[in-house]
Amino acid sequence: MPHRIVHMLRARGSGRRPVMLAIAGDSAAGKTTLTRGLVRCLGEDRMTAVCVDDYHRYDRSEREGKPFTALHPDCNHIDVMEQHLQLLSMGEPILKPVYDHATGELVRPELVEPREFVIVEGLLPLHTRLARACFDITVYLDPPEELRHAWKVRRDCDKRGYTPEQVRAELDRREPESAAYIRPQRRWADIVVRFAPVAGRQDPPGTPLSAELLLRPTIDHPELDTVIGDSAPPPPAPGSPHGAETAMHLRLHRDTDGRPVDALHVHGYVSPDESRIVKKAIWERLGPRAGDGGLDPDALGRFGDGGTSDPLAITQLLLLYHLLDADRRQAA
Amino acid sequence: MPHRIVHMLRARGSGRRPVMLAIAGDSAAGKTTLTRGLVRCLGEDRMTAVCVDDYHRYDRSEREGKPFTALHPDCNHIDVMEQHLQLLSMGEPILKPVYDHATGELVRPELVEPREFVIVEGLLPLHTRLARACFDITVYLDPPEELRHAWKVRRDCDKRGYTPEQVRAELDRREPESAAYIRPQRRWADIVVRFAPVAGRQDPPGTPLSAELLLRPTIDHPELDTVIGDSAPPPPAPGSPHGAETAMHLRLHRDTDGRPVDALHVHGYVSPDESRIVKKAIWERLGPRAGDGGLDPDALGRFGDGGTSDPLAITQLLLLYHLLDADRRQAA
Repeated sequence: MPHRIVHMLRARGSGRRPVMLAIAGDSAAGKTTLTRGLVRCLGEDRMTAVCVDDYHRYDRSEREGKPFTALHPDCNHIDVMEQHLQLLSMGEPILKPVYDHATGELVRPELVEPREFVIVEGLLPLHTRLARACFDITVYLDPPEELRHAWKVRRDCDKRGYTPEQVRAELDRREPESAAYIRPQRRWADIVVRFAPVAGRQDPPGTPLSAELLLRPTIDHPELDTVIGDSAPPPPAPGSPHGAETAMHLRLHRDTDGRPVDALHVHGYVSPDESRIVKKAIWERLGPRAGDGGLDPDALGRFGDGGTSDPLAITQLLLLYHLLDADRRQAA
Repeated sequence: MPHRIVHMLRARGSGRRPVMLAIAGDSAAGKTTLTRGLVRCLGEDRMTAVCVDDYHRYDRSEREGKPFTALHPDCNHIDVMEQHLQLLSMGEPILKPVYDHATGELVRPELVEPREFVIVEGLLPLHTRLARACFDITVYLDPPEELRHAWKVRRDCDKRGYTPEQVRAELDRREPESAAYIRPQRRWADIVVRFAPVAGRQDPPGTPLSAELLLRPTIDHPELDTVIGDSAPPPPAPGSPHGAETAMHLRLHRDTDGRPVDALHVHGYVSPDESRIVKKAIWERLGPRAGDGGLDPDALGRFGDGGTSDPLAITQLLLLYHLLDADRRQAA
């Protein structure tokens, strides 16, 4: 080999690159629930879901006595995470590190091969500029902190064998690093998703949480103003218990940092009729791809425990729109 | 993120890429012995040595019943090995998989950060075109098979706890894949190194093996013809037990495939004086870098068991020449 030949990393197969969606958010913010419905709707043969929380520099025993928690960037191989995001975005496989939550050890890595669509969920996927540059669509999950804490206590006690006191102590310990490294990622999201109860309402038990979606003008959102915006017809369900009040609306809004955003509200008490109209509008905007039979709309809006939610379904549908739209642009 | 921005993988630091040397060869061919002296001579702060034999797709228990041994390319993540070689050649760190020979399991991967010089040794580093393209210098270790078998029996019994019968059975089992995948890499080496006894000689016990180095015209070798070639003066040690016979010579040679090569022979019975002249000639050709005090010539020619060998030292010195020469060209 007389000369150094550095090849660009090969684009395999057709040379099409996968569409990359980031779902960032703190522990127990709902990332997996949001991701699962998208994978089921598009199909596992077309979508790869990968969690990027396993790039730990230290295992549990090595972390003891260190002055930071596992979510501090210095506690992670952020440079390798960036590298792996770049590789996935180029259609390349990765050998992803694997952390065993049960033992606190780093174990055998796993091969991850990107399919047409890649969802990357985790604590820090939007932490660095290079990582952000790998994504077509970026989402930040931003539930109220008290709700997230309750979710984390439930999940870590049910599935990971901790006591509520242990989980709450860990949440306290992590709070400074959440504030310093996790929450600032909200700034970099094309879509900020907040599931929460509507303030001041006394909805019957079992009413799903409402969704507030901040739609930043950093990507092109589907045109919904004529359906639920200021120029939309009055709500279609005057017989509903909420009378003529609109359970879904799109409003111009100023974000906490002063930047303008569209805010799409989908209330938990939305009537099936009203939600059907919006879903239909988004499906129509998906274009011919939505009707090719390859999508399973029944997979949307489902929780792990079997419950369903229209605000969740509409949130996922909007993300589905963006995935297919990015794919269409890339094919064009 | 309105648009996909795929960055080239960053070149960190000064932007200089490491010089990459491959040492390919079958199991127990002497790769580690050759590598160790180079690392000690240049210093661990300047050189990274990495073995690429851990990219197993299956661990030991998963391999049972499979119709191939661990060295079959289909039994390895060759695409990830290629990717990691590219990353190293671009100065990027990798999380390299790790195989535990004691348990036969794949375990926690390790971070490998390339320094100025990277030696990649292993069974298959020259197997694919993309992998080969990552190297500045490629070496194939080609000892006679009976010698390699003896080395493997000794090492695997001493260090890995096998019986001689087990090692010989494994050698038999691997033979078809050695022939199909390992030995064809000889074709792609800039330098083919063969340590072997000289046929027909009865050297006293303890005489080191001779080295035969095929120097292919695929890289620029140091000009040694005036020292040990046809135009060199007669050997300097007429009082030696070998009389006027030259223990070192450079001859034009036709390789087994008919291609022309230079063949540098360094016999095990080379006298200290004769070997000193050649070493001095190569050091001089290393240029000012050789004299900067950062190199340790005493690290060359040493075996793990404390023995020394001039043929080994001269082989390593030649590789050192190529490492520094490639670095100089890159800086130019």
